[in-house]
Amino acid sequence: MANVNPPRGMRDFLPADKARRERVLAVIRDRYRAHGFDEIETPVVEEYDRLHAGIGGDNEKLSFNILRRGLDAEAIRSGAEDPAVLSDLGLRYDLTVPLARFYATNHGRLPAVFRSIQIGPVWRAERPQKGRYRQFVQCDIDIIGDGTSRAEAELIVASLDTIDALGLAGGIVRVNDRRALEWMLDSFGFTDEERPGVLITIDKLDKIGPDGVAAELRERGATASAVDAFAAFLLRPQTMEHDPYGERQIRTALPEGAPDELVAHLVGLGEAVVAARPDAGEPPLQYDPFLVRGMGYYTGTIFELAHPSVSYSLGGGGRYDGMIGRFLGRQVPAVGFSIGFERIVDLVAAQQTDAAQAVVLVHDADVPVAELVAHKTTLLRDGGAVRVRLERRTKNLKALLERAAADGYTGFASVRAGDAPGATEVRPLS
Amino acid sequence: MANVNPPRGMRDFLPADKARRERVLAVIRDRYRAHGFDEIETPVVEEYDRLHAGIGGDNEKLSFNILRRGLDAEAIRSGAEDPAVLSDLGLRYDLTVPLARFYATNHGRLPAVFRSIQIGPVWRAERPQKGRYRQFVQCDIDIIGDGTSRAEAELIVASLDTIDALGLAGGIVRVNDRRALEWMLDSFGFTDEERPGVLITIDKLDKIGPDGVAAELRERGATASAVDAFAAFLLRPQTMEHDPYGERQIRTALPEGAPDELVAHLVGLGEAVVAARPDAGEPPLQYDPFLVRGMGYYTGTIFELAHPSVSYSLGGGGRYDGMIGRFLGRQVPAVGFSIGFERIVDLVAAQQTDAAQAVVLVHDADVPVAELVAHKTTLLRDGGAVRVRLERRTKNLKALLERAAADGYTGFASVRAGDAPGATEVRPLS
Repeated sequence: MANVNPPRGMRDFLPADKARRERVLAVIRDRYRAHGFDEIETPVVEEYDRLHAGIGGDNEKLSFNILRRGLDAEAIRSGAEDPAVLSDLGLRYDLTVPLARFYATNHGRLPAVFRSIQIGPVWRAERPQKGRYRQFVQCDIDIIGDGTSRAEAELIVASLDTIDALGLAGGIVRVNDRRALEWMLDSFGFTDEERPGVLITIDKLDKIGPDGVAAELRERGATASAVDAFAAFLLRPQTMEHDPYGERQIRTALPEGAPDELVAHLVGLGEAVVAARPDAGEPPLQYDPFLVRGMGYYTGTIFELAHPSVSYSLGGGGRYDGMIGRFLGRQVPAVGFSIGFERIVDLVAAQQTDAAQAVVLVHDADVPVAELVAHKTTLLRDGGAVRVRLERRTKNLKALLERAAADGYTGFASVRAGDAPGATEVRPLS
Repeated sequence: MANVNPPRGMRDFLPADKARRERVLAVIRDRYRAHGFDEIETPVVEEYDRLHAGIGGDNEKLSFNILRRGLDAEAIRSGAEDPAVLSDLGLRYDLTVPLARFYATNHGRLPAVFRSIQIGPVWRAERPQKGRYRQFVQCDIDIIGDGTSRAEAELIVASLDTIDALGLAGGIVRVNDRRALEWMLDSFGFTDEERPGVLITIDKLDKIGPDGVAAELRERGATASAVDAFAAFLLRPQTMEHDPYGERQIRTALPEGAPDELVAHLVGLGEAVVAARPDAGEPPLQYDPFLVRGMGYYTGTIFELAHPSVSYSLGGGGRYDGMIGRFLGRQVPAVGFSIGFERIVDLVAAQQTDAAQAVVLVHDADVPVAELVAHKTTLLRDGGAVRVRLERRTKNLKALLERAAADGYTGFASVRAGDAPGATEVRPLS
């Protein structure tokens, strides 16, 4: 037979995986809802022109485009260089561009401050590598219509509460502001034209260190005096003393002379987070003056969700006050926070053993379906089981049970016709 | 501003719609699971060649194909007639073809009899018209590896239980068998070559009546003596007496001389359904010798879910024993039942008023987020609310409440800083 694998970079989910994913999604949905957000859904397909409007940054280049229907071959032969001729639709590469379009379509039916939940797959033609998928799920919350740091605090608190509820307590949100980044680069003497390239290099600071950043900026041919000033700042002596998030930490992390209103905004964000978690002590925030985040559409605060157990981020987001206007024709402030579902679900699977049971019901061939359903319902409802699989008894029971154990089942029960539901003993599969 | 509607034939779901859809899906998932089915998921995208292998019938022609990445214009110019050159992937048009591929990929990790649940969107480039969408959700259950009518009974019982749980009791499953249809057409004297066309015409019997069917068959140029025999059979005198599903009803509905083993199979299906619902009385089945169902891949029993409140079907399915072999290289019996989610969700919305409340929390600007979350959580958990929206108090409270009522909210509560959660009175929005 020919290759029967799923398309490259995409995945099948077997029952154990699917059940785990749905459980994690249910917790996320529940916590987001409890924080006052309402779930919406948009089609997975959007118009080609909207997906390629220059809003989506590098992700635009990774988008899967849908072949225009009813194309005739002559039309293709004559003007095929332009992919827009071949495509009129595409698969969404994120949930933010569709949300902005959704808001423009439906704003008349939405509250003045709209708190949205979006949970669903997105597609990117990523180069295949470990942990990179071409279809993956994003879980986004956004607040549209509130330009204050209170909205940002709501997103941060809801996201931290959500990963807490998943057993991943101890999350930290790294915070920066695009305007602070811009001011800092200006103060070192980089030109406006150099800024995008400089930001790409700074984004690698964690990987290549201060010397690597300085070297790469010189290679780029950035203004030499600015590179020198920046390198000196990166390598300045710093105390190892821990400052909690607040004015002192922010002022220390930035070059001298940071504008008061920028600092006040960042300090206010911490105060709003504390106000939202009155019993939780110091804010779980960390000011990081070199946090960049790739997307070009951010206009203010940006954040990234870190967790002590992993080196990569578990999510992030920021303020994008310019995007809604692209679709609506008037500016509306907006800010969003996206949880990286695929990373979270792997982490939850690694950290937690399923306390709930997965039970195989081995039944004789003559047990009526109604009885099997009653047994299964009882186990699901009363027994704390999260999955119940029905298996007709076979001669090689051992092989059957071994296969079930390999598929993540933890217990089994034998059922004969007439057994009372709930009376069957669940024994461990070992 | 330019058009900001969703792509043609696709829909945005606002919070009230989305919440209703998720509630219906939760019931379906819960009932399917209780009947011993396990949920899986496949990518929404499959290889072009698999989607266009001649398995999917007319739906193949409606598939959205994805533009091959890295296409160069020269290659297109030289051979663009073949869409396979332009596309290597496509959006799935049903859940059955991907399931057969999934089983071929993963059969070594699945039980001998595999009961799958698949819930997700499919895409078809339907001509836009009322009630036809280009993206819509299907809810499928399938049993792979069991060729007996017991599997068919399990599907029927699980599907009826599911629509019962949605408040749509009284469902009836119309049953036929592709082999009975073929035998009947043979017995009238239609040739094998005429069969596909004759079936397309018979499928219109409900709409155009016996005379219309006979006329259309004559127009098609079908064997005249066969058309005469068929027309005479359709117009034969019949008693109006109601027979319950069983041998007498089946024999009466078919021309004389139906093969015993076909009748025995159909009778056995009714017995298996009764065995699965021992307290429910006569089987909620109806034998319909003219039920066709469009798909070419059905090989045996076919069924369609009817409900007294509507004239269209709410779902259907059948046995497709030949399909898995196309991917796996050896035959494995399979049978499936799909619930038409979009129709069900409209029907549930029309028949039920939401008993549960949807509450707007109008709060002063100074209420800390933590308190709002506590209020909201309390309403969601204890108050039976299904949606809670937060709204900051505005000068025009009346307009705010009217907008909320228009969006399906049924109650509101006022919250001031320091109010105890649960102590706020929910008042009706009228």
